[in-house]
Amino acid sequence: MKKIKMGMIGGGIGAFIGDAHRRASRICNDYELVGGVFDINYAKSMEFAVKEGISLARCYNSVDALIKGELKFPKNERMEVVAIVTPNAYHYLFAKKFLDNGFHLVCEKPMTITVKEALELEKLVAKNKLTFALTHTYTGYPMVRQMRDMIAKGVLGTIQRIDAQYYQGWINSIIHGTGSRITGVWRLDPKMAGASSCMGDIGVHAFNLIEYTTGLEVKEVLSDLNSVKDGVTLDLDGTILLRFNKMLKGVIRSSQVCAGEENNLSIAVYGSKASLKWSQENPNYLYMLHDSEPTKVFKPAHGYNDKLAEEGHTMPAGHPEGIYEALANIYRGTAKSIRKEKFKPGEFPTVHDGVRGMKFIHAVVNSNAKGNVWTKV
Amino acid sequence: MKKIKMGMIGGGIGAFIGDAHRRASRICNDYELVGGVFDINYAKSMEFAVKEGISLARCYNSVDALIKGELKFPKNERMEVVAIVTPNAYHYLFAKKFLDNGFHLVCEKPMTITVKEALELEKLVAKNKLTFALTHTYTGYPMVRQMRDMIAKGVLGTIQRIDAQYYQGWINSIIHGTGSRITGVWRLDPKMAGASSCMGDIGVHAFNLIEYTTGLEVKEVLSDLNSVKDGVTLDLDGTILLRFNKMLKGVIRSSQVCAGEENNLSIAVYGSKASLKWSQENPNYLYMLHDSEPTKVFKPAHGYNDKLAEEGHTMPAGHPEGIYEALANIYRGTAKSIRKEKFKPGEFPTVHDGVRGMKFIHAVVNSNAKGNVWTKV
Amino acid sequence: MKKIKMGMIGGGIGAFIGDAHRRASRICNDYELVGGVFDINYAKSMEFAVKEGISLARCYNSVDALIKGELKFPKNERMEVVAIVTPNAYHYLFAKKFLDNGFHLVCEKPMTITVKEALELEKLVAKNKLTFALTHTYTGYPMVRQMRDMIAKGVLGTIQRIDAQYYQGWINSIIHGTGSRITGVWRLDPKMAGASSCMGDIGVHAFNLIEYTTGLEVKEVLSDLNSVKDGVTLDLDGTILLRFNKMLKGVIRSSQVCAGEENNLSIAVYGSKASLKWSQENPNYLYMLHDSEPTKVFKPAHGYNDKLAEEGHTMPAGHPEGIYEALANIYRGTAKSIRKEKFKPGEFPTVHDGVRGMKFIHAVVNSNAKGNVWTKV
Amino acid sequence: MKKIKMGMIGGGIGAFIGDAHRRASRICNDYELVGGVFDINYAKSMEFAVKEGISLARCYNSVDALIKGELKFPKNERMEVVAIVTPNAYHYLFAKKFLDNGFHLVCEKPMTITVKEALELEKLVAKNKLTFALTHTYTGYPMVRQMRDMIAKGVLGTIQRIDAQYYQGWINSIIHGTGSRITGVWRLDPKMAGASSCMGDIGVHAFNLIEYTTGLEVKEVLSDLNSVKDGVTLDLDGTILLRFNKMLKGVIRSSQVCAGEENNLSIAVYGSKASLKWSQENPNYLYMLHDSEPTKVFKPAHGYNDKLAEEGHTMPAGHPEGIYEALANIYRGTAKSIRKEKFKPGEFPTVHDGVRGMKFIHAVVNSNAKGNVWTKV
Repeated sequence: MKKIKMGMIGGGIGAFIGDAHRRASRICNDYELVGGVFDINYAKSMEFAVKEGISLARCYNSVDALIKGELKFPKNERMEVVAIVTPNAYHYLFAKKFLDNGFHLVCEKPMTITVKEALELEKLVAKNKLTFALTHTYTGYPMVRQMRDMIAKGVLGTIQRIDAQYYQGWINSIIHGTGSRITGVWRLDPKMAGASSCMGDIGVHAFNLIEYTTGLEVKEVLSDLNSVKDGVTLDLDGTILLRFNKMLKGVIRSSQVCAGEENNLSIAVYGSKASLKWSQENPNYLYMLHDSEPTKVFKPAHGYNDKLAEEGHTMPAGHPEGIYEALANIYRGTAKSIRKEKFKPGEFPTVHDGVRGMKFIHAVVNSNAKGNVWTKV
Repeated sequence: MKKIKMGMIGGGIGAFIGDAHRRASRICNDYELVGGVFDINYAKSMEFAVKEGISLARCYNSVDALIKGELKFPKNERMEVVAIVTPNAYHYLFAKKFLDNGFHLVCEKPMTITVKEALELEKLVAKNKLTFALTHTYTGYPMVRQMRDMIAKGVLGTIQRIDAQYYQGWINSIIHGTGSRITGVWRLDPKMAGASSCMGDIGVHAFNLIEYTTGLEVKEVLSDLNSVKDGVTLDLDGTILLRFNKMLKGVIRSSQVCAGEENNLSIAVYGSKASLKWSQENPNYLYMLHDSEPTKVFKPAHGYNDKLAEEGHTMPAGHPEGIYEALANIYRGTAKSIRKEKFKPGEFPTVHDGVRGMKFIHAVVNSNAKGNVWTKV
Repeated sequence: MKKIKMGMIGGGIGAFIGDAHRRASRICNDYELVGGVFDINYAKSMEFAVKEGISLARCYNSVDALIKGELKFPKNERMEVVAIVTPNAYHYLFAKKFLDNGFHLVCEKPMTITVKEALELEKLVAKNKLTFALTHTYTGYPMVRQMRDMIAKGVLGTIQRIDAQYYQGWINSIIHGTGSRITGVWRLDPKMAGASSCMGDIGVHAFNLIEYTTGLEVKEVLSDLNSVKDGVTLDLDGTILLRFNKMLKGVIRSSQVCAGEENNLSIAVYGSKASLKWSQENPNYLYMLHDSEPTKVFKPAHGYNDKLAEEGHTMPAGHPEGIYEALANIYRGTAKSIRKEKFKPGEFPTVHDGVRGMKFIHAVVNSNAKGNVWTKV
Repeated sequence: MKKIKMGMIGGGIGAFIGDAHRRASRICNDYELVGGVFDINYAKSMEFAVKEGISLARCYNSVDALIKGELKFPKNERMEVVAIVTPNAYHYLFAKKFLDNGFHLVCEKPMTITVKEALELEKLVAKNKLTFALTHTYTGYPMVRQMRDMIAKGVLGTIQRIDAQYYQGWINSIIHGTGSRITGVWRLDPKMAGASSCMGDIGVHAFNLIEYTTGLEVKEVLSDLNSVKDGVTLDLDGTILLRFNKMLKGVIRSSQVCAGEENNLSIAVYGSKASLKWSQENPNYLYMLHDSEPTKVFKPAHGYNDKLAEEGHTMPAGHPEGIYEALANIYRGTAKSIRKEKFKPGEFPTVHDGVRGMKFIHAVVNSNAKGNVWTKV
C-alpha cells in the first residue's frame, strides 16, 4: 500500500520525542518521512536530514517555507501529514498554519498554551475536515483499549471511584543540582511550557486516561499544587480532587520530583460490580478485581480481548510490546483516518481530547491560584 | 518469666478482632488471659469463657463488676491490663473507668468518639502513670519500623511528598445487597461508629502510618468525602489533601467500596535524596527508590535492618510473617512498658497517637461538612 | 475446651525451630506446654524452663526420665503429645520410645536417618493407634490446601508436568567464610544430618509438596547432586528428574548455596486443562493459568475456596498470615486427631509422609552415588 | 546514512516471525527491504510484495532466481543482506547458497537440522568474511546485555549454579484439540522441524541465554524428554541436566505444553558473591540478590548500566520497550558489522552460536534416545 508522506517540525538531533514519533511511524509502516523543519537552527536541521537520509530539498528553513514548498508538489507527492514535536509554546501557531493549508496533523500534548487556542484548532479541524491526532501515547496500549472496552460494555457496573497517578522523579535531581540531565528543562520555563509544568506535562495524561477509559467527563476540580523548592515558579507536584457527578468522585496525583520514580502512570477505576487497574510500567497486565471472585489478569494476544485491543499487539502472547508499539498503534489509527478507511473511536486521541486537556490544565491552575476551590473544567 | 494477667472487654464468639488480640498476646507469650466481659449478653460471654477455658469466676457481667471483682485480688494475682475490643462508642467510657482504677490498657482504634474524650484519656494516662497501647496494628510490621528508622536517620533527605492509601471493598457488597457479610456493619451506624465510617475506621490508619514513619505532624487537611449511595449517612470513601509545612504536601486516599480491594494500605514517602514505599498486603518488602541507583528491596531478618525491625521478625529470612505477628510485636512492646523494662519509642502506639487520630478524624469530617476547606488538625 | 498437655524434646534457648513449634501451638490454642527435655545439657534445659515459666518438676534430664516421670501422672494430667525438634539423628530413637509408651508425636522432618527406621515407626503408629504429625509446615498454608483441593477435583485435567524448586542461600556464606551464622551448621555433618544436607533438609519439602498437592506418587528419580566446594562431604545443591508414569515427568531443583535466595520454595503443576502455581515467599497467592482465559489469582478468606483452605486463614481477606499460622494449622489438625474429632486427610502430614520422604532421600542419594541412574523411590 | 538493502526468504502473509524481522529492521532504521521470496507459492509472494509496496521486479520465484537477479545489480544497488525466516529445514540450503554468493545473512534459529551443516556454514562465513546473525532475539534485551556485562566483570564471584527455564503452552491446545491455532504446527513435523520440537525451538534459546550471559560452555548434558501424548513423535517437554565443570552444574527446563504459560523464559545465575535473575515476560527488570544486602533491581536507561545495555533502550527510564526493540538491537549490531563499523562481541549472535545450538540440540536428543545418559555437547 502507498505510504503516507509525512513531515516533522522539531525532533532533530538529540530530541527523544521526535525520535519516538519516527520510530512509531516506521513500526506501523504506513508513513514515509519526506521532510520537515527539524531544528530552529537551519544548519542543525540539515545535519539531521543528511543523517536520516532525507532529501535536503525538503528540509525547510521554516514552517512557512515548508508549507509554501510542499504546496508546489502535485497532490500525490505532497506531504500529507505533519508531526509537531516542538516545545509546547509553538504547537498552536504551527498547527494553525498547517490546518489552514490542508495538512493533517499529529501533535504532541499539551496541544496549546490556552483554552482559546485549543478551541480555535478544534473549529479549524472540523471546518477543513482534517485528521488531527494528539499523542496521548498511553491510549495506544492494548490493555488500555481493553479497559475502555470493558467499561463501555458495563462490566464494572456503576463507577464509584476513580484514582489516577502519574509520578516521575526526573526533575528532582535538576532542582537539587545532583543530576546531569539538561534536555527537557524548558519545561520549567513558563514561556515555553505554559502555565504548568507537572500538570501540563504529565497530570494531563492521567486526566486523559480517565476520560479515555471511562467515557466520563470530569466536571470540576479542586487542586493543591506545589512548586516544592524556593525559586521554582511552576508546579512540580500536586493533587487534584475530581468530581464527575453527585456520587462519583476521584483524584489525580502527579509529581515530577518523586525521587526514583520513573514513569509511574497508573489508573484504577472502581465500580459497583468490579474494578480495573492498569499501570504503564507493566503495560501488558490489566487487573480485574471482584468482591467474591479471584482477581483476573488480562493480557494481550488472547481471544478474550476486544478486537481493537487485539490488533494493537502483533506478537504471540508473552512477548512484551512497549511504548513504541503503543505510539505506533496511534499512528496506525491516524493513517486509517487520513486514508478515509473505517476506524473505531479511540484509535487515536483527537483535537477534542486536546481541548479537554487544556480546559483541565487551566482549571487546575486556577483552582490552585484561587486558594484550592472547586473550578469547572 | 511471669505472665501479665490480661482481661478483655468484647471479643466474644464470632468477633474477629478480639480473636486477633488473643492470638497476638499468645504469640508474644507475655500474657495470660484470665477474664473479661466478652459479650454484652452475659450468657454468651460465659459460653465464650467456657469454650476458651477461662474461669467463670472471672467472666464478669459488666465492666463495673470486673473492676470491683479484680480489685479484690491481691496485686500479684490481679488483672493488670485490659484489652478493649468493643465497637468504638464504648471505648472512652470503659477506658476511663479502667484508667481511674489503675489498669493498663490495650485499646482498639479509633480511640474515642470525640477529641475531648481523647484528650481526657491522655491526661488520665499521664496522671496515673499507666501504659496505654492503641492498636494501630500496622506499626507492628518490621518493615514499617525499618522505614521509620531510615527516615529518622535522614536517608530520604528533605521529604517532598507523602502519599498514603487505604482501599477496602467489603462495604460494597453490603450497600448493593450482593454479599452475605453481616459482621461489622455497626460501622455504618453513627451511634456506634462515630462521625465517620471510612476515615474513622481505616483512613485514620493511613494517617497514623504517615506520622509514625515520618515523625512529622499533619498541620491541615482539606477533605472531600463520599457516601456513595443514597441512604448512607456516613462517608464510605474520600480523599484528603494534607499540609505539613510550606513546601510539603501530601494526600490520603481511602475507601471501603473499592470492589475487590481487600486491605490495600500503602504508603509512599518521597524525599530529596531517595524514597520509600511499603504496602500492607506484601508487608515483608520495603522498596527504596533512588534517582540514579537500582531500586533496593529491604526484607526482614537481615543484619542491615534496625534492631527494632529485626526483633519483630523471629523466623529466618524468607519465611513470611504476617498481621498476627505485627500485632504481637505491639503486645510485646506494651508488655515491656507494663513491666517497666526499657523500650524504644515506636514499640507500641500510645494514647497520644489516639489523640492525633481523633483530631484527624474530626478535622476531616469538618473540612468536608464546611465545603472542602482547609481545617487545622 | 481442655488443652492438650504437650512436651518438647530439644528446642531450648536459641533454637528457632523449637520456638516456631511453641508459637504455633499457642496460636491454635489447643495445647499447653507442660514439660520436656529442652537441651542435651540439663542445666541449660532448666534455664530454658525457668525462662518459659515451665515447672522444673517436668523439666527432665533425659527422654527416658521424661517417659518414666510422665507415666506416673494420672492419665488426665499426663503429657499426651511430644514435639521432637532435635537434630535429625535423634528423631528415630526418641520417636520409637514415645510410641512404645503411648505418646502422640509431632516430629520435625526428615523423620529418620534410614528408610528402615521410618517403616518401623509407621508400623508402631498403626499398631498403637497413635497420632503422628510430621511437620512439613508448608502443607499448612491455606493456598497449598486450596491447590490440593482443586487438583483433587480435576480442575487441571490430566497432569502433564510438575516442577518444584527449593532454593536457599544461607550455606553460601558458611562455605565461603563470609557470614557470621553458626546455628544449624550441624546440617553439614553426616552424623547429625544423615546422608544428605540439601535434599534431606529442603529437597524433601519440595518432594512432599508435590505428593501433597497432586495426590500422585513419584515412582523413580534420577539425581545429580553437587557439594559445590572441596571439603564439603554432603550435597548442598542438586537437580532431580522425576517420573510418575509413562507420560508424566517432572523435576525438583534445590540448593542451599544460591546467594541471596531466602526460602524460595515454589511449585508449578501443569495440566491438560489448566495449571496452578504457588510460591512460599508470597504464600497468600495461588495462580491458575489457562490457555484461553485470564490468569486467576486465588487468595485466602474468600467463599470460592475449599473449606479446609478457608479455616486455615482467620483474618479477613487482605490481612496476610504467614508461616506461624501455617504451622498452627498443622497443630490444629493434629489436635483434632488426638482428640478423636473428625478431620480431613491433609490436615497434618503423617508418618506415611515421613516414610515417603525417607524413601525419596535415599533414592536421590543412591541415584547420584551410582552415577545418575534411575532409582525407584 | 545510506540504508542497507535487505531481502527476505519466507515471512509472507500471516507469518508472524517475518513481520517481526521487518518491524525490527525498520525500528533500527539501518535497512531497506527491497525484495525476496516471501512465500513458496509465487502468487502469494507477489501478493505480499504488492501489499508491502515492494517492487515486483525484485519479488523472485526462488532463491536461485533471487541470487541470479540480484547479482546483476551494480554493487551499490544490490541486496546486501538476506533474512531467512522459513521453517527450519530450509535454513541450511538457502544459507549456503547465499554465503557462496557473498550475501550477508540474518537467520532464524535453530540454524540448521544437523551439526554437520552448522559447521559447514561456520566455515563458509569465515572463509567469505561475511556477517551472519542468528536471531536469538532475547540477547537483544538491554537487561540481558547488562547481565552479561556484570558477570564478565566478576560481580557474581565463582558461579555455583545455573538454572534456565523456557515454558510455553501453545501446543497444549493443539494436541488436545481444544484450541484454534494452526500456524506454526509444522514444528511437530520432524521433516520440517528437525529432530526436536521443544528443545529445538525454545530449549535452545535457554541454552543460548546461558552461554551468552555467563560466557561459559556447557560441556555435557543428560536429558529426559517427553512427547506427552500418544501419537506425538517429537519432544514437547523435557528437563536437561547440565555440567560445566567439576563444581558447576545446572539445569534447563522447557515445555510447550504448560497450559497457560505464554513465553516464560527465565534465567538465574547463582554465584559465590551474588546472583542475577531475569525473566523475558518482564524484560526491563534485572534482579541482583546478595546474602547480606537488599536485593537490587536494575532497569534500563540509567547511568549505572553498561554502555551496550544503555544503547539498547532509547526511551527515558520507565517507558517499557519490548521484544521488537530487542530484535532491533540485534539488527542494529548486524548493520554495524555489515558496514565494517566497530562493534562489541554480543551485539548480535553469530554463526558460532548457531553451531553451539545445533550441538546442544543433538546432544539432548541423543542423551534421551540412549536412556538419559551424559552426552558431550
